[in-house]
Amino acid sequence: MNALTSLARLEVGYDVPALPGMDEANIQTPCLILDLDALERNIKKMGEYANAHGMRHRAHGKMHKSVDVLKLQMKFGAVGVCCQKVSEAEVFVRAGIHDVLVSNQVRDPVKIDRLARLPMLGARVIVCVDDLANVADLSAAAQKHSTTIECLVEIDCGAGRCGVRRSEEVLEIAKAIDAEAGLKFTGIQAYQGAMQHIESYEQRKAKLDVAIAQVADAVSALKAIGLEAELVSGGGTGSYYFESNSGVYNELQCGSYAFMDADYGRIRDRDGKRIDQGEWQNALFILTSVMSHAKPHLAVVDAGLKAQSVDSGLPFVYGRDGVKYIKCSDEHGVIEDPNGVLKINEKLRLVPGHCDPTCNVHDWYVGVRNGKVETLWPISARGKAY
Amino acid sequence: MNALTSLARLEVGYDVPALPGMDEANIQTPCLILDLDALERNIKKMGEYANAHGMRHRAHGKMHKSVDVLKLQMKFGAVGVCCQKVSEAEVFVRAGIHDVLVSNQVRDPVKIDRLARLPMLGARVIVCVDDLANVADLSAAAQKHSTTIECLVEIDCGAGRCGVRRSEEVLEIAKAIDAEAGLKFTGIQAYQGAMQHIESYEQRKAKLDVAIAQVADAVSALKAIGLEAELVSGGGTGSYYFESNSGVYNELQCGSYAFMDADYGRIRDRDGKRIDQGEWQNALFILTSVMSHAKPHLAVVDAGLKAQSVDSGLPFVYGRDGVKYIKCSDEHGVIEDPNGVLKINEKLRLVPGHCDPTCNVHDWYVGVRNGKVETLWPISARGKAY
Repeated sequence: MNALTSLARLEVGYDVPALPGMDEANIQTPCLILDLDALERNIKKMGEYANAHGMRHRAHGKMHKSVDVLKLQMKFGAVGVCCQKVSEAEVFVRAGIHDVLVSNQVRDPVKIDRLARLPMLGARVIVCVDDLANVADLSAAAQKHSTTIECLVEIDCGAGRCGVRRSEEVLEIAKAIDAEAGLKFTGIQAYQGAMQHIESYEQRKAKLDVAIAQVADAVSALKAIGLEAELVSGGGTGSYYFESNSGVYNELQCGSYAFMDADYGRIRDRDGKRIDQGEWQNALFILTSVMSHAKPHLAVVDAGLKAQSVDSGLPFVYGRDGVKYIKCSDEHGVIEDPNGVLKINEKLRLVPGHCDPTCNVHDWYVGVRNGKVETLWPISARGKAY
Repeated sequence: MNALTSLARLEVGYDVPALPGMDEANIQTPCLILDLDALERNIKKMGEYANAHGMRHRAHGKMHKSVDVLKLQMKFGAVGVCCQKVSEAEVFVRAGIHDVLVSNQVRDPVKIDRLARLPMLGARVIVCVDDLANVADLSAAAQKHSTTIECLVEIDCGAGRCGVRRSEEVLEIAKAIDAEAGLKFTGIQAYQGAMQHIESYEQRKAKLDVAIAQVADAVSALKAIGLEAELVSGGGTGSYYFESNSGVYNELQCGSYAFMDADYGRIRDRDGKRIDQGEWQNALFILTSVMSHAKPHLAVVDAGLKAQSVDSGLPFVYGRDGVKYIKCSDEHGVIEDPNGVLKINEKLRLVPGHCDPTCNVHDWYVGVRNGKVETLWPISARGKAY
């Protein structure tokens, strides 16, 4: 857990927000901190869950973009990583990860060429396909580099984005993949993204039932023509129990469970309880400081839009009643403090609305335990958008 | 304009989205591109405006976070830079900028110490103050390093964030600054941020009239006790003409005019015309590619939440009628394409909803002219949030 040992001369406050060994009170804000106890507990729990249910867990690296967090997930049972961009895949492969799925379409010729080169670094490389026209391009690049690109046909099972909808289309693409040199038909990608954040467990279940039926139909149709789906991959933090008990999926792609965020936290488990109140623990926080209190009932903190994404709503102040983050501008957050309890330089932990794009604006995770900075992990694939 | 010459071996698609000399068609997406003709036109125009109106223009570096863009602004008359964080100020001072205002409160002891050290690198350093309790801390740090920190008292003239409201409070803080060793009372910071994005020119003017009266009152009250405000600084892209003609302000802090964005673009000039239709030109774009078109009426592009901030709304597709960016998820944008005109790998220019936090998620500006990549500028202060 000491990725930073060799970089320990970086300047605190300019290059890095903290250094290992430092008291938590001295961390420079705003920055991301990870509660290592909560993080390890979440990661271990998911590992045990997947193992007990006979599921592979391919951790979603697009959420944390961190080689160090991924390695912790793999220590507790994750089989590899999925990510959304070729440049992210390159980060993980270069770090020695051997099983990498780009859970997305890759169409640009330069990106296809880069993807086709990755197996030369020792990794199994898998990509999604939703268009017959993509198959020949992938094949040509794999042949050029004498590598194999494994392909999942992507089914749009409700997200309304990439992917095909009908089993006939799945068969057509799968057959084309199977017929092409340099490619291997490996299975199905079917992630129901649109339902993950619906609060009601029953409403999420209803959406997943539809998705599972759609995937089951495609898998049987493939089997009927002699094409076995080795991987049927999908499932997120709001749905993994449905895929795990489907009898159809065999691989999960959960990401946010490890960190949690405000938007996921408010969805309900089958007992009607918020999932951040037991199922998972908040491990990721934006640490922020009060920097102005010129109005008695409003405090201003130093974490604004450049320290987080507010696409899924504002953050909440963790573990503090009576104060509320009500407004976010570029470098400022306004905190309602009706009783004027907050002091200048007081630090607050914010739970971001949406973890993925929030992590993407920071360079470091500061890992804390028992009031001390234990480690500093680079956000290895931050900004890898290509 | 060749910041990248010495780094020209970076790998395109992994480290950088493009290299100078490349055709625009080969740029890897998603990334930020700058139309250099439009950029230079905007920057020259603001420089001429400020000069003609006897105003200093202190360009807002928090918007672009780029030493190269700032140097272009200074070539065309800007007097220096303002920014919001000490770590940003450090980037600009280390790059040789001699007049730097942190247009914000600095309260953390470590940050105050860093700020107090900056004049040793040859820069005039100015900071804002809205609390009497801050004055002694700033003074102690300046004395420790035998430097001078110049201070502006910040007035909240309508933004509802940092700053004091009443002239008596301004006087009290100004007197305290004036009395402390190591500090210099330099003037007033009064930026009306809340009104910049109101569409109607008349409504913006009404808000600014109130702000200007408030600032004028404070300036007279200061003069009456023998404290001259050398700088009265404020003004943004939606208001600079009001401050310039106020007879009270002498320094502008415009930033977004250089790049423009969708949110600013829709505000109106005094003739009722959108300000991106003549007053300024769109110079900043997110370049994105179509990566899936599995549904005939919807195209999916590769620029989502990790390529932009949607806090001020979705981007619009520049120069293309009949297609519309309607949904943004982490790595995808969904484009309504009712006539199915978009092709796989076709590139689109998106005008981001809000330029500042969008620039903060990217590492590079790709400067283009006449279909060629002319330069690559690092976003020097990206991620400098401390």
